[in-house]
Amino acid sequence: MKAEIEAAHARIQPCIRETPVEPWSHAGESVFLKLEHLQRTGSFKLRGASNKIAMLSPQQAARGVVAASNGNHGLGVAAAAQARGIAAEVYVSTTVSPAKARRIESLGARIVVAGDDPLTAELSARRAAEKSGRVFISPYNDLDVVAGQGTIGVELQRQLPKLDAVFVAVGGGGLIGGIGAWFKAVAPQTEIVGCWAANSPVLHECLRAGRIIDVAEEPTLSESTAGNLEPDSITLDVCRGVIDRHALVSEDEILRAMRLIKDTEHWLIEGAAAVAVASYLQEAGRYDGRTVAIVLCGRNLSPAALERLG
Amino acid sequence: MKAEIEAAHARIQPCIRETPVEPWSHAGESVFLKLEHLQRTGSFKLRGASNKIAMLSPQQAARGVVAASNGNHGLGVAAAAQARGIAAEVYVSTTVSPAKARRIESLGARIVVAGDDPLTAELSARRAAEKSGRVFISPYNDLDVVAGQGTIGVELQRQLPKLDAVFVAVGGGGLIGGIGAWFKAVAPQTEIVGCWAANSPVLHECLRAGRIIDVAEEPTLSESTAGNLEPDSITLDVCRGVIDRHALVSEDEILRAMRLIKDTEHWLIEGAAAVAVASYLQEAGRYDGRTVAIVLCGRNLSPAALERLG
Repeated sequence: MKAEIEAAHARIQPCIRETPVEPWSHAGESVFLKLEHLQRTGSFKLRGASNKIAMLSPQQAARGVVAASNGNHGLGVAAAAQARGIAAEVYVSTTVSPAKARRIESLGARIVVAGDDPLTAELSARRAAEKSGRVFISPYNDLDVVAGQGTIGVELQRQLPKLDAVFVAVGGGGLIGGIGAWFKAVAPQTEIVGCWAANSPVLHECLRAGRIIDVAEEPTLSESTAGNLEPDSITLDVCRGVIDRHALVSEDEILRAMRLIKDTEHWLIEGAAAVAVASYLQEAGRYDGRTVAIVLCGRNLSPAALERLG
Repeated sequence: MKAEIEAAHARIQPCIRETPVEPWSHAGESVFLKLEHLQRTGSFKLRGASNKIAMLSPQQAARGVVAASNGNHGLGVAAAAQARGIAAEVYVSTTVSPAKARRIESLGARIVVAGDDPLTAELSARRAAEKSGRVFISPYNDLDVVAGQGTIGVELQRQLPKLDAVFVAVGGGGLIGGIGAWFKAVAPQTEIVGCWAANSPVLHECLRAGRIIDVAEEPTLSESTAGNLEPDSITLDVCRGVIDRHALVSEDEILRAMRLIKDTEHWLIEGAAAVAVASYLQEAGRYDGRTVAIVLCGRNLSPAALERLG
């Protein structure tokens, strides 16, 4: 995927922000935070959506795009569509937070409320896309989207040329798949650490099983990585080839990591970002003196998570 | 000062981050936040310090620099000195927060604790600088520092070419002096709104009096704008020429603005940044439909402020 990620990197430059890397002084001199939560729209999802939308043919673009998401992917698709000046419809379930829906609309997308859960919304979105001949943009099950997320790897490798390990939260696997594919191609000695909320170890269990299975989940602060995988997801194979180690963290560890980043850096980060931080903290001994990057993937906390953070 | 600010802008590029501007969807389509709290070191102070330090002669640089600051200016001087590879000594009072002191040290500066209040620390720092022939870097009373802060104006004007007003918190007057000088030179129709915590209206009262006077202060959440002015401060004249309107906000308004930015944008901002936000909110009616920028000048909240924010 190296060529695809390189092409994505060039393609999405006008739409995205190259996010900074900063030392995390709390954790010592060789631990760095990749500040992807400063990305436009508040999360990395803008990268994948921007790449996908930039690759549409003029005919496809003219018809507009469809997505289903109650959160970051919806924001990413809306912003990327707005940047190309095309129409976007974002299907949400009735459980969407009003603030998120307003924000998606403020980026020019049309909101369609369909069903009481994300899966129903997604099925409706896919049906609507098919009927109308519009492109449906998956949040992770699409190599163009994964290549877009991989552009974080391009930046990281240039920002920290001697990187021993990268900690990345795993949901659908698009983020770690893209970043990992880049490093495996250009710096295979860099360890790729997949980080999960123990309450929702979906792709972790699928990788162990060697196939996509139904994984039981408990509620988690890492809202944006929650949810089961599509049965045909391409990210299973991508992730199998790139994730070197697995870390699982408890809800307590996630909350403590959110608080620590708030207190030491004055950043509010999503539970998903804190999963990567907490995983590093769990493993810190192993990485003593080595150069480590932790990807802070987003800052779009729900009001409930904000409340718990205090 | 246009030429000085332009020169500063070119000079400090390698040291600073050009900070983004984002629409503040909460406040409508034409209200923008200048995200200077994302600056390296967490505040705009890095700009002025970087300009001053970049302008030192090789001889001056070889001797190192001295500053006095319990906060953002200390961080800015430390980071700028580290970037040029020169020594920096930062005088702090015993009231400095341990976390801030550690952070200044982690940027390679030497901390000298001198006295129980900032004024004593400053007098000691000036004495030490004079004795040793080193340059003392003032946080605001220095045109090179003011020109450095003015580079925010250069960015803003390019990012938002048709700007009707800019809201800026005022402490020593370096930030608004620099930004205002830029706009008066290149876009004088842009209104410069000075924003004060009503509990600490120092430069506001000095401008009314027409000279630098002693102004009584109450404690304020806007910690980094607090404190009286040096009797000879050049910022009085600079600010007289550039501030078009004055806004004063209460502690309640500041706290509410901090919370609103936290809830709507997921940014933690300093009280000083919230002073500008609160001032805009107070005056919103007046700016309806006009393009407005609010400068979020920093994110280095004290633990106490973080606690109050909740």
